[in-house]
Amino acid sequence: MGNCSQGCQHYFCRPKNTNVRVSLPAVCFVWQVAMIILFGVFVRYDKEADAHWSETKKEENITSNVENDFYYRYPSFQDVHVMIFVGFGFLMTFLKRYSFGGVGFNFLIAAFGLQWALLMQGWFHSLDPVTGYIYIGIENLINADFCVAGCLIAFGALLGKVSPVQLMVMTLFGVTLYAVEEYIILNLLHAIDAGGSMVIHIFGAYYGLTISWVLYRPNLHQSKRLHGSVYHSDVFAMIGTLFLWMYWPSFNSAICYHGDGQHRAAINTYLSLAASVLTTFAISSLSAKRGKLDMVHIQNATLAGGVAMGTAAEFMIQPYGALIVGFCCGIVSTFGYLVLTPFMEKCLKIQDTCGIHNLHAMPGVLGGVVGAITAATASNAVYSPEGLINTFDFQGNFATRSVTTQGAYQAAAMCVALIFGIGGGALVGLILRFPIWGDAEDDNCFDDEVYWELPEDEESIPPILEYNNHMVTKNPDICESNFSVDQS
Amino acid sequence: MGNCSQGCQHYFCRPKNTNVRVSLPAVCFVWQVAMIILFGVFVRYDKEADAHWSETKKEENITSNVENDFYYRYPSFQDVHVMIFVGFGFLMTFLKRYSFGGVGFNFLIAAFGLQWALLMQGWFHSLDPVTGYIYIGIENLINADFCVAGCLIAFGALLGKVSPVQLMVMTLFGVTLYAVEEYIILNLLHAIDAGGSMVIHIFGAYYGLTISWVLYRPNLHQSKRLHGSVYHSDVFAMIGTLFLWMYWPSFNSAICYHGDGQHRAAINTYLSLAASVLTTFAISSLSAKRGKLDMVHIQNATLAGGVAMGTAAEFMIQPYGALIVGFCCGIVSTFGYLVLTPFMEKCLKIQDTCGIHNLHAMPGVLGGVVGAITAATASNAVYSPEGLINTFDFQGNFATRSVTTQGAYQAAAMCVALIFGIGGGALVGLILRFPIWGDAEDDNCFDDEVYWELPEDEESIPPILEYNNHMVTKNPDICESNFSVDQS
Amino acid sequence: MGNCSQGCQHYFCRPKNTNVRVSLPAVCFVWQVAMIILFGVFVRYDKEADAHWSETKKEENITSNVENDFYYRYPSFQDVHVMIFVGFGFLMTFLKRYSFGGVGFNFLIAAFGLQWALLMQGWFHSLDPVTGYIYIGIENLINADFCVAGCLIAFGALLGKVSPVQLMVMTLFGVTLYAVEEYIILNLLHAIDAGGSMVIHIFGAYYGLTISWVLYRPNLHQSKRLHGSVYHSDVFAMIGTLFLWMYWPSFNSAICYHGDGQHRAAINTYLSLAASVLTTFAISSLSAKRGKLDMVHIQNATLAGGVAMGTAAEFMIQPYGALIVGFCCGIVSTFGYLVLTPFMEKCLKIQDTCGIHNLHAMPGVLGGVVGAITAATASNAVYSPEGLINTFDFQGNFATRSVTTQGAYQAAAMCVALIFGIGGGALVGLILRFPIWGDAEDDNCFDDEVYWELPEDEESIPPILEYNNHMVTKNPDICESNFSVDQS
Repeated sequence: MGNCSQGCQHYFCRPKNTNVRVSLPAVCFVWQVAMIILFGVFVRYDKEADAHWSETKKEENITSNVENDFYYRYPSFQDVHVMIFVGFGFLMTFLKRYSFGGVGFNFLIAAFGLQWALLMQGWFHSLDPVTGYIYIGIENLINADFCVAGCLIAFGALLGKVSPVQLMVMTLFGVTLYAVEEYIILNLLHAIDAGGSMVIHIFGAYYGLTISWVLYRPNLHQSKRLHGSVYHSDVFAMIGTLFLWMYWPSFNSAICYHGDGQHRAAINTYLSLAASVLTTFAISSLSAKRGKLDMVHIQNATLAGGVAMGTAAEFMIQPYGALIVGFCCGIVSTFGYLVLTPFMEKCLKIQDTCGIHNLHAMPGVLGGVVGAITAATASNAVYSPEGLINTFDFQGNFATRSVTTQGAYQAAAMCVALIFGIGGGALVGLILRFPIWGDAEDDNCFDDEVYWELPEDEESIPPILEYNNHMVTKNPDICESNFSVDQS
Repeated sequence: MGNCSQGCQHYFCRPKNTNVRVSLPAVCFVWQVAMIILFGVFVRYDKEADAHWSETKKEENITSNVENDFYYRYPSFQDVHVMIFVGFGFLMTFLKRYSFGGVGFNFLIAAFGLQWALLMQGWFHSLDPVTGYIYIGIENLINADFCVAGCLIAFGALLGKVSPVQLMVMTLFGVTLYAVEEYIILNLLHAIDAGGSMVIHIFGAYYGLTISWVLYRPNLHQSKRLHGSVYHSDVFAMIGTLFLWMYWPSFNSAICYHGDGQHRAAINTYLSLAASVLTTFAISSLSAKRGKLDMVHIQNATLAGGVAMGTAAEFMIQPYGALIVGFCCGIVSTFGYLVLTPFMEKCLKIQDTCGIHNLHAMPGVLGGVVGAITAATASNAVYSPEGLINTFDFQGNFATRSVTTQGAYQAAAMCVALIFGIGGGALVGLILRFPIWGDAEDDNCFDDEVYWELPEDEESIPPILEYNNHMVTKNPDICESNFSVDQS
Repeated sequence: MGNCSQGCQHYFCRPKNTNVRVSLPAVCFVWQVAMIILFGVFVRYDKEADAHWSETKKEENITSNVENDFYYRYPSFQDVHVMIFVGFGFLMTFLKRYSFGGVGFNFLIAAFGLQWALLMQGWFHSLDPVTGYIYIGIENLINADFCVAGCLIAFGALLGKVSPVQLMVMTLFGVTLYAVEEYIILNLLHAIDAGGSMVIHIFGAYYGLTISWVLYRPNLHQSKRLHGSVYHSDVFAMIGTLFLWMYWPSFNSAICYHGDGQHRAAINTYLSLAASVLTTFAISSLSAKRGKLDMVHIQNATLAGGVAMGTAAEFMIQPYGALIVGFCCGIVSTFGYLVLTPFMEKCLKIQDTCGIHNLHAMPGVLGGVVGAITAATASNAVYSPEGLINTFDFQGNFATRSVTTQGAYQAAAMCVALIFGIGGGALVGLILRFPIWGDAEDDNCFDDEVYWELPEDEESIPPILEYNNHMVTKNPDICESNFSVDQS
């Protein structure tokens, strides 16, 4: 390894066709230039971010600065932003030798994805037919982060098995599909999905799982030595877990409109998450010899409660309803890690590195079902007439829609998300199978060595230094020791 | 170890009675089910989180959405939430082989504790006598996090020596005691304690210390090999330290009511924390051979300034007053680590893993004293008549109370916290001594091996893989090296 | 080493004159006491944080509590606070054996610097000529954090080569110089620099680089063995990178005044940062054999987009303008790491540990230039007359200033920052060359061993324990292994 990192040419040391020196920079440059051009043609500040705001305020008789949408949404936006980059990023550092790839590629595709998402979502939601401009404000930034989340979920299934170029392509298509799916679900079907159980989690999870199925690696067991964690990599992953867990109430409430809606969404999510922690610990302990807990479950299944509260976040399901949702999710998700993931890999040929089927797919479906049922059973008594209109946005073309119909459309929305995820995943999977993307061999997966310059090991100290290096001269084994950590 | 984790049955490798496979899941399930039932019977959304809010607003002539309490308190709530889960959690990862337990069990008991706290605190503070319901909003979530903080402080004294089941029991009683103590201090005595120097820190610390005293382990030195940190575990602990330090101004200001109160509490805490950092570094350096700094002091004593500003957070102690408080706390707390902790373990038979006596107990008492004095010396000149009423909430039954009386009640409140901490701790300690909780032997403490599936070491690679594994075949010592990190 | 930490006296083991046992505590105590006295004489709460606020509100007919500046700025303040302590702190943990020093000394000088900054900035900005008091509120806390950021940038160039005492001195002078420079730039020249491309980044970077030049260590190569990262230290550094990256929109928008200004600054920074990520990955891959990415680039150059948006943050440069700025910065900054840093060390005798010239100096200059140009080309059409006045604060003495003149003053401001950085750095560098500050020898740099008690290694377990220690008795190599990590 020490040698490899310095370009050893032994047969075994020469990884094949994983050279991305041309493709990765090309993709990054071309797409970033395209972004600049498209933003130049289409994107401008929305009125609340434009310097004309001071005049707009006069026209609209707005007196207080705090009326600017920025002050309502910015704190939640920052929480969501942390979930995207630190939450997802560090959750994927759990592999012993793929921490650079986990947090680094997450960083890359998120930074690209959010630019593309601003455009795609803008075309569908914020395009002004008169001027032909997309006007962006804080809410667009939040929605872009949401869109990116869908692709990062898919990344979880592919972690360690694909090249950064493939991830960029996966993100390009993923964001595009997401924007269309989101438009159909939120605008055409007029389904409610504040926290994206369907739009984000079902779509993202099945998108990633289908790609992983198409890219099935029969000999992945040859990388088994690296397909696990070490002590400290599991602690790093807990950073991601906790920031996702803590900020999930912001995720589910970020784009709820009304004071009480955001307030309620935060409470529901907070409670649901708390409940899923307890059932996760329970099942994890119950399933193991001598009741020993498994870090994989704690890192992932504890979050299922937040996923499942996405759709019904601002509904009046009452605190105990949120607890029940979290209770079930913790159980379902942990069982998934115990039973389904091995089964899917063995029988369905789906290799799901992070177990997104357990953390996002199943809880997402559960969340969609809960949302459909609670919507269908909503009533004026519980919501108050005005509250019902606010919560389900029964206005304009949808002023006359009944809650039962709404429930049906919620269910339909779930199917749309599923279809887009599976259909889109199959398509993109085929594209990613072209042998041009520089992915690694089956015996070389989950290894940062392939795409990253890893830190040098101590052996490369010039002998002359050893003389001044009293530490090393005193205990020679330190070389090995630093070296050892170096490799970890 | 490799073998042990695969259930080796050598005499020495068979830890005794630490099997929590029945007890832990049972406790988690039963209590979570109980939560669901109790929430179903008692808990509803408060008016600002209820869908009827849009009607309530009309009745109360509230025009702006931002008037919803959610927008005042949510950012501070999220900061406190981060302190509870990442702050306390990572602060307890400093042990070389107990990082999983530190952050993992912190996660478990916090998630359970906050549900129980919502109920217990609700019964005392938010129960509507007419409907019999507890109405919860954002402020209840903050208070639940505060309540949990008390139990997490106690956890600090027990870290590595108790089983997760014992921690759940400790939390159940701790939250209950906290709710009663809080009611007596804030409602009956009408003491002011915005940041909880007394309610949270004194109670939590003496609760934990007393339990630790009752559970004294005479042969704990047999686990001495694991009772210390490694380089990277100390860096992980700094994550906890910094998030606690940075967000402490939010902790102390989160439930202050008035614009100026929250504003002042944040400034005071910010300054007090800054001062305690300098004196901590000073004493730590002064006390060591060649002035070398000790990470234990930096990780803990730097936070003492925030603890001590809890009670007087919103008082007019002026910026220099806050600096003086922080100045003293840094010194006292660091001396505690140098002198008191060893003394307490040797002479008082109190084994305090994280040194909570230095970080929470002493600064908490200091904070209580500062609060009592500054309250007793408050004046209309300094606060303005209205400001005095707002700050000390001299309304209703307490409209006629003098500041001198208030000072006396503040002192009384400190005694109440102390009594509840010691009394409750003794009781709970006795309960935790029953031999049914699955705690480890004295020679097996501070070891994640007991309750966690630790990552496999490299030795378990099937030989057949070694052939494909050029890395291993090239430098055989990598096995050992990864292995080594594995064990670290 | 194991021995050294127990005070071995072999010739080689006795580091020279690095004993800070007297100097460090002395400096901390004296300066903290000075702070208390000066705060006592000069500093009071501003009206929005004072208990008289409730009366002030009446006088000023303020009805809503949320009008208090606290609610506008506190969320951004907390984000900035996280950047200062976790962002900068963890960014500097990348060295394999200097993580304690990176995060620990960052903590120390930031905590001291912000107190001194409150005073110095207060004297220039918030001093009431009538009462002679400095009135501080949330905005002063944000500005103090900004000021500290300048010194932490300078710390980046000195990392591992200076003693904590030298850092304290560097901070004392740095904050003082910063306050004067800030006053000249913002008040006298009336330049706009919301995110501090010039005031913070140009000044801080050249201040640190000049000091590093004066303190040039010809034999630093003797510490080469420690002048690099290990796998996990690079992951720790990513924590710092991501929190800086995510919260940079708050940094650049924190002290913008108007709803639309803050809103726009956040959008511009968000986009600029996203673009610099892609170009950083592109150049990093393009420059390496087989296209392998370099963690040093990802950790640093990805942030350049935020630095360069500092000055023009609230200008109407349009989203595509922000993308162009980020696009260029990612390229320039990464090239800096590839070409300039080695060149500067070899030819200019400037040893820049963290490469602040690439991350702060060059992007800062770019940001200043962008600011000057965009200011000179501003127009009523783009900003609206009132918007132009709000954005550039054309009021009072500056009511008649033209945008062209403003552009010229922006350019002048850049020169002022440069002059203060280089001049101040030369002066302070000479002071730091006195042989009294306890800095380490050339062969002993980048080593926590010098100023920190490092965790004990396993070898120091008393033999008697080994008997109970079945783990160790079973696999003796664990001693070495833990030991090894211990040293890492």
